[in-house]
Amino acid sequence: MKLKPIEDHLVVKVPSETEEKTIGGIIIPDTAKEKPQIGEVLAVGTDEDLQKIVKVGDKVLYGKYAGTEIEVEGEKLLILSQDDILALVE
Amino acid sequence: MKLKPIEDHLVVKVPSETEEKTIGGIIIPDTAKEKPQIGEVLAVGTDEDLQKIVKVGDKVLYGKYAGTEIEVEGEKLLILSQDDILALVE
Amino acid sequence: MKLKPIEDHLVVKVPSETEEKTIGGIIIPDTAKEKPQIGEVLAVGTDEDLQKIVKVGDKVLYGKYAGTEIEVEGEKLLILSQDDILALVE
Amino acid sequence: MKLKPIEDHLVVKVPSETEEKTIGGIIIPDTAKEKPQIGEVLAVGTDEDLQKIVKVGDKVLYGKYAGTEIEVEGEKLLILSQDDILALVE
Amino acid sequence: MKLKPIEDHLVVKVPSETEEKTIGGIIIPDTAKEKPQIGEVLAVGTDEDLQKIVKVGDKVLYGKYAGTEIEVEGEKLLILSQDDILALVE
Amino acid sequence: MKLKPIEDHLVVKVPSETEEKTIGGIIIPDTAKEKPQIGEVLAVGTDEDLQKIVKVGDKVLYGKYAGTEIEVEGEKLLILSQDDILALVE
Amino acid sequence: MKLKPIEDHLVVKVPSETEEKTIGGIIIPDTAKEKPQIGEVLAVGTDEDLQKIVKVGDKVLYGKYAGTEIEVEGEKLLILSQDDILALVE
Repeated sequence: MKLKPIEDHLVVKVPSETEEKTIGGIIIPDTAKEKPQIGEVLAVGTDEDLQKIVKVGDKVLYGKYAGTEIEVEGEKLLILSQDDILALVE
Repeated sequence: MKLKPIEDHLVVKVPSETEEKTIGGIIIPDTAKEKPQIGEVLAVGTDEDLQKIVKVGDKVLYGKYAGTEIEVEGEKLLILSQDDILALVE
Repeated sequence: MKLKPIEDHLVVKVPSETEEKTIGGIIIPDTAKEKPQIGEVLAVGTDEDLQKIVKVGDKVLYGKYAGTEIEVEGEKLLILSQDDILALVE
Repeated sequence: MKLKPIEDHLVVKVPSETEEKTIGGIIIPDTAKEKPQIGEVLAVGTDEDLQKIVKVGDKVLYGKYAGTEIEVEGEKLLILSQDDILALVE
Repeated sequence: MKLKPIEDHLVVKVPSETEEKTIGGIIIPDTAKEKPQIGEVLAVGTDEDLQKIVKVGDKVLYGKYAGTEIEVEGEKLLILSQDDILALVE
Repeated sequence: MKLKPIEDHLVVKVPSETEEKTIGGIIIPDTAKEKPQIGEVLAVGTDEDLQKIVKVGDKVLYGKYAGTEIEVEGEKLLILSQDDILALVE
Repeated sequence: MKLKPIEDHLVVKVPSETEEKTIGGIIIPDTAKEKPQIGEVLAVGTDEDLQKIVKVGDKVLYGKYAGTEIEVEGEKLLILSQDDILALVE
């Protein structure tokens, strides 16, 4: 069973609540205007622009209220569109 | 009697309430910001872009409040447009 | 006396209240988010895209609150635009 | 003294209240969602698309709240734009 | 001292309150949905489309709440943009 | 220390409160719908269209609530974009 | 660990509260309609237009509520997009 995102959409693995505050030294402040989150890319749509920007395995920073949540075989996933991505984390 | 969707619209079969929470291992969490649903594609409009993305028989993930409901010969259907589709389920 | 719709507009005959719930086996559920209706096309505007999609005599499915109502010689009509049409009924 | 509408605007003569309910067999129902009205075209702007659609003397159907009212030498006029026109009445 | 309107803007002389109800036989009804006004064009911006439509000395009809008011050497002026003009008055 | 406005932005010197009511014979009426102000251009962005319209030293009329205020070495400045300019004052 | 901004986004170092009121003689007045801030550019996205405007090390003026805050290894950062930049400070 697999999710195949449409065109400029991508699927990311949502971090657990304990993971989400510090990932690789990045701290999301509680006082942040719009708390961003970091997730790992699991699948990328067919859009060429999107494929130039991210690939499977990348870590992406996205706004907390971005995208649509879904749970597949016990794993929390999020379907984002290209515009939801703020930065790559390296 | 048949529904023929216009241009970039498609017709999907709406899952029953018991079906809608777990389809093929995918669980839609009650806490999801915007609960998506999975439906089977019954008919696809004439739009070429849409026809590259989905074909009859595909399972598509769409937002819970997307589209227009209709009931044909006892079967619940939904008319979606291309923008309502978040991902294909394989 | 005739109504000649402009460009991408069309004129449809509005079904009566008893007709509107079941037309050719299609049932519009009372619980539908946005109840669609089915009407017969009486006139089509000059827009080429529209003319490829519908012709006089077609039955079209449209949203309940779409278009502008008018009554000509005792017959309830509705002036729709192309974007109001969800599907053809065959 | 004359009004010369700009580009895609046109000037129509507004029907009196007694005229407005039945013009040539067309009845505007009181229960209409958005009551349309029928007016006679007095002047057409210089826009080529508009000039293909209407000419002076045509009767046009438009939404009740469309346009800007003005009174010239005792005659109620309305300045509409092309998008306000729903259909021609023949 | 002179006002030079930018691009598709123009400067018109605002009529006094006694002038504004009847200018050349045109009466603006108190019951008008959006009361228009008539002003004389004093300066026209450099936009070519605008210059084809109006020239200095023309009388233009515009919506009551259009534009930005200013007073230069005791004279009430209004800075309008092309889209605020409904018709020329001849 | 210098502010260099981006693309279609410009920096203007904001008039003091006593200056702002009468600059060169132009009176901004208290009853104006949207009180405009006049400022002197200190810097112009790199946008070619903007550079054709204003240059350093020009006096420009702009809406009272336009732009972003800043104070540099005791001088009140405003960062405007091209769309905020209503007219040049000569 | 590094943040790599996407396309027309950039990463800036947010000034501390004591720094933010006077940076190089620029005072942001408390009465400003929309208080701008000055930050140092740490990373620039791949967008060519953006790269012509700013480079790493530049100081940029941006609106107080612009962008998304994040904290990396004890340093407050902000992810802005090109449209958030008002001016460069030299």
